[in-house]
Amino acid sequence: MDSAKILALTGGVGGAKLALGLTDLLGEDQLEIVVNTADDFRHLGLNICPDIDTLLYTLSGKSNQQLGWGLAGESWAAMDALEQLGGETWFRLGDKDLATHLWRTQALGDGTCLAQVTDNLAKRMGVQHSIHPMSDDPVSTLVHSDEGDLPFQHYFVRRQCAPAVTGFSFRGLDRAVVNPAVSELIASQSLKGVVICPSNPFVSVDPILRLPGFYESLKASHIPVIAVSPIVAGMAIKGPAAKMMAELNMPVTALAVAEHYAEHYPGLLNHFVIDQSDGTLAPVINELGMIAATTATIMKTREDKRALAEFVLRLLEI
Amino acid sequence: MDSAKILALTGGVGGAKLALGLTDLLGEDQLEIVVNTADDFRHLGLNICPDIDTLLYTLSGKSNQQLGWGLAGESWAAMDALEQLGGETWFRLGDKDLATHLWRTQALGDGTCLAQVTDNLAKRMGVQHSIHPMSDDPVSTLVHSDEGDLPFQHYFVRRQCAPAVTGFSFRGLDRAVVNPAVSELIASQSLKGVVICPSNPFVSVDPILRLPGFYESLKASHIPVIAVSPIVAGMAIKGPAAKMMAELNMPVTALAVAEHYAEHYPGLLNHFVIDQSDGTLAPVINELGMIAATTATIMKTREDKRALAEFVLRLLEI
Repeated sequence: MDSAKILALTGGVGGAKLALGLTDLLGEDQLEIVVNTADDFRHLGLNICPDIDTLLYTLSGKSNQQLGWGLAGESWAAMDALEQLGGETWFRLGDKDLATHLWRTQALGDGTCLAQVTDNLAKRMGVQHSIHPMSDDPVSTLVHSDEGDLPFQHYFVRRQCAPAVTGFSFRGLDRAVVNPAVSELIASQSLKGVVICPSNPFVSVDPILRLPGFYESLKASHIPVIAVSPIVAGMAIKGPAAKMMAELNMPVTALAVAEHYAEHYPGLLNHFVIDQSDGTLAPVINELGMIAATTATIMKTREDKRALAEFVLRLLEI
Repeated sequence: MDSAKILALTGGVGGAKLALGLTDLLGEDQLEIVVNTADDFRHLGLNICPDIDTLLYTLSGKSNQQLGWGLAGESWAAMDALEQLGGETWFRLGDKDLATHLWRTQALGDGTCLAQVTDNLAKRMGVQHSIHPMSDDPVSTLVHSDEGDLPFQHYFVRRQCAPAVTGFSFRGLDRAVVNPAVSELIASQSLKGVVICPSNPFVSVDPILRLPGFYESLKASHIPVIAVSPIVAGMAIKGPAAKMMAELNMPVTALAVAEHYAEHYPGLLNHFVIDQSDGTLAPVINELGMIAATTATIMKTREDKRALAEFVLRLLEI
């Protein structure tokens, strides 16, 4: 019989921290990870998958702790030369990082699907756990804002999240097929729990949950699902989630994140993990049909990541 | 009235040397350069134009004198990282050089034609003279060899010209349209001479001369055409021309190059410039319907390049 498995859903930096904690506690036969690809884009001719790369770099111990993104020990000769040519340098591609995109672009160009390409890349980087792009089909996020509709990376990196957000749409999402490896895992007897990492609910988690049939199959499976709030004490630990919530006229609270999940994915969450500083929100969250669980959720050290992972697994009784 | 103009035809390294000498003597309104693009290829998702880049790097003073190709002061972080991923590193793309390919790939992807892209790149690199790709249409060289048919860069770089050559074909050449700027120049009253630089006759010059209508229009124009032999004393100064000639059962001599041009492009050449070490070949070359002109053709120093350029321009009475 297969061993009991956990499926983690994640976007980029914030989610990858908990994913790292989970890999510390669970073997490669106990944990699989599905990653948002709705912020993937083509740039300078390259296929760039920011969330996949953040996860690969984090799990392989190659991530740049100082920058908070990209590779450690990175150099920037290509970007400097591109700047001299007057090229587009707003998306900072380090020299080493470029190798990842060149490798991927070549492989996709040869007709290999993104799932296989990602699997190959992960193995070559020494990542043991299975990393699944949410779909092989391209999905692209459009940020509706007071400056018009912006492709996600233009909003996120080029404009540094400055435009005020009014909503999001995901081109290609309604025709995208869930990565078959993920569908099979959800349908299998071995899946014992799902962890929604503390990623941005709107642009990292929603694209995964809104894949055709994804939420429905998860709900039908009755597998316990736990989400960790990316909002702590009214702030996002990383990224624009808090700013987006304010602009969308939502209270910037963990409660509002729980309400978002309860409204759009009724009955999905068994537990919602909030930070100990937000403990007073627990009773109201409990009324949303999920159980609030309170612990320290800010992950600065490796030990923090492992402790939060351990807490989540205890909730799943793993 | 337009000033008198010279058109130079060139491939990569060898031809670029004479082109550099010509730019030392002729202003940007006196010289235009058409470059072979039949060795262009897509690699790692990038559009790479080796001959155009060699010319741009040479004319902008950025070329790597030690390596004989690529950019001076280059670094290799991307290639090192790609090697760690087990990627294809046989075509050595330096970090700075990558910026050129990224810039071009982006621009072509945006729908800009190669001629415009090349013009923009040249301006951004500070190259004053007009550099024309021979065509906006893709042409790709297939090397027929004892190891089968090989794409040119696989033969040239990956296999280091090791396979024995039996012939060449140029995919797309019969449908490729001559760069309109070049056609216009040939049709104009201002063009006073054409210089075929000492590039490989088979894989650098032939693709240009064999573009539909190119040779015919040159011949009809009665503009004097001068070619410089890439073979000196039975050897190629640079590249596989000598090895190819031996494998094609041709004598490895400047005379055989002259015969190649006389056979395939009858009446085209007015002068054929050979090295002083090959002076004894002059009488036989004269019998081919062109005038052999003997001088020092080995270009090591900038002064060498300028001297050969000066000799060629004297033959054209410029």
